Amino acid sequence: MERVPLERKVLNENGRIAAGLRARFADHNILCLNLISSPGSGKTTLLERTLASFPPGERVAVLTGDIQTENDAMRLARFGFPVKQITTGGTCHLDARMIKRALADWRLEEIDLLLIENVGNLVCPSSYDLGEAAKVVLLSVTEGEDKPLKYPSIFFKSELLVLTKTDLLPHLQYDIRAAEENARRIQGGMRIIRTSCVSREGLQDWFSWLDERRRIVGAPPVAAC
Amino acid sequence: MERVPLERKVLNENGRIAAGLRARFADHNILCLNLISSPGSGKTTLLERTLASFPPGERVAVLTGDIQTENDAMRLARFGFPVKQITTGGTCHLDARMIKRALADWRLEEIDLLLIENVGNLVCPSSYDLGEAAKVVLLSVTEGEDKPLKYPSIFFKSELLVLTKTDLLPHLQYDIRAAEENARRIQGGMRIIRTSCVSREGLQDWFSWLDERRRIVGAPPVAAC
Repeated sequence: MERVPLERKVLNENGRIAAGLRARFADHNILCLNLISSPGSGKTTLLERTLASFPPGERVAVLTGDIQTENDAMRLARFGFPVKQITTGGTCHLDARMIKRALADWRLEEIDLLLIENVGNLVCPSSYDLGEAAKVVLLSVTEGEDKPLKYPSIFFKSELLVLTKTDLLPHLQYDIRAAEENARRIQGGMRIIRTSCVSREGLQDWFSWLDERRRIVGAPPVAAC
Repeated sequence: MERVPLERKVLNENGRIAAGLRARFADHNILCLNLISSPGSGKTTLLERTLASFPPGERVAVLTGDIQTENDAMRLARFGFPVKQITTGGTCHLDARMIKRALADWRLEEIDLLLIENVGNLVCPSSYDLGEAAKVVLLSVTEGEDKPLKYPSIFFKSELLVLTKTDLLPHLQYDIRAAEENARRIQGGMRIIRTSCVSREGLQDWFSWLDERRRIVGAPPVAAC
């Protein structure tokens, strides 16, 4: 198989561009977060609630990735902050080159927080560094408790796990503690926040985590890699 | 970018092995179906209900793919039919070589129906032919209506869309007709079955589809490609 060395070459090239992005984010004191989950776990809805919580003039911007459609950018643009859709046209993940290109006509000195919503995919995006300070993985409670064990890479590499759609728990056979234990079998001591964008459970905890994390933007990333 | 030609080479090699598998399935009158969806859409649960519906001695077998864990094979093995887990160890999809290897010690003359549960991923598995007669895509109603537009390839290539978890509809803001219309914008006239493995809505329709499809096993695949 000649695939592995080629993949490594692609990842090395991606890593080189990501390192450049990380340096630029540091220069401008930007906290960049890379949100990753399965399709339909609620990344866009969490971002809607997050943008809605900010006062006008907050120095936040969003890049949102999808294979096709501008749907997410349209949903997110109505909060008045800079939002750009990256349409990958078939590629199953965002890569650092796409981020660099998307940022080309934005003034980084006007941004403090850059939220990147990756393509819905629990596998491939975990391999592509985007220059972020931290990855955040979302997992909806409709997806089954064993997902951290089945897709360990992203649970190992993320600084935070956001469990979503907890309002549906009364209607599901779902053991949320087992899901959390499984995540901590992959990453002991993993920080976890239970949320629902319907009942608003845990949203304040997410906003607080975001606030705290913004305060240590200059520090080296805490996440394992 | 030298990536595209290499990907093409990998896909061509995969296609060659898949063609060999398809010929063997035809020789043995085996209907092979490739089930694809996001993580947690309910592939394994639908297969549990399906295997439970068969009488002992039914000539059915299952291959189930995951990046890590043997969980799904353990869940499916208790129905008494041959089941094998394929653990990809990081790869985001099953490929034809994995299927060929997994079948090496099975007697194909004892199988009429081979169900393949792919790795949970709505993107990458759609590119890898496994020698199946048809792809079946599952989409849970918790995932949002616009997924067919965002991930068009798999909705274009699948012969059937199984909507899952309809028992949750009363608790969701979800327009199931919009989801179906979106699927048919990608593939006009797409066959769709609404199901719930909890309320058992639509399971009989799924079993009937399976029965019908098994009767035309010898015919060329209907699915677009």
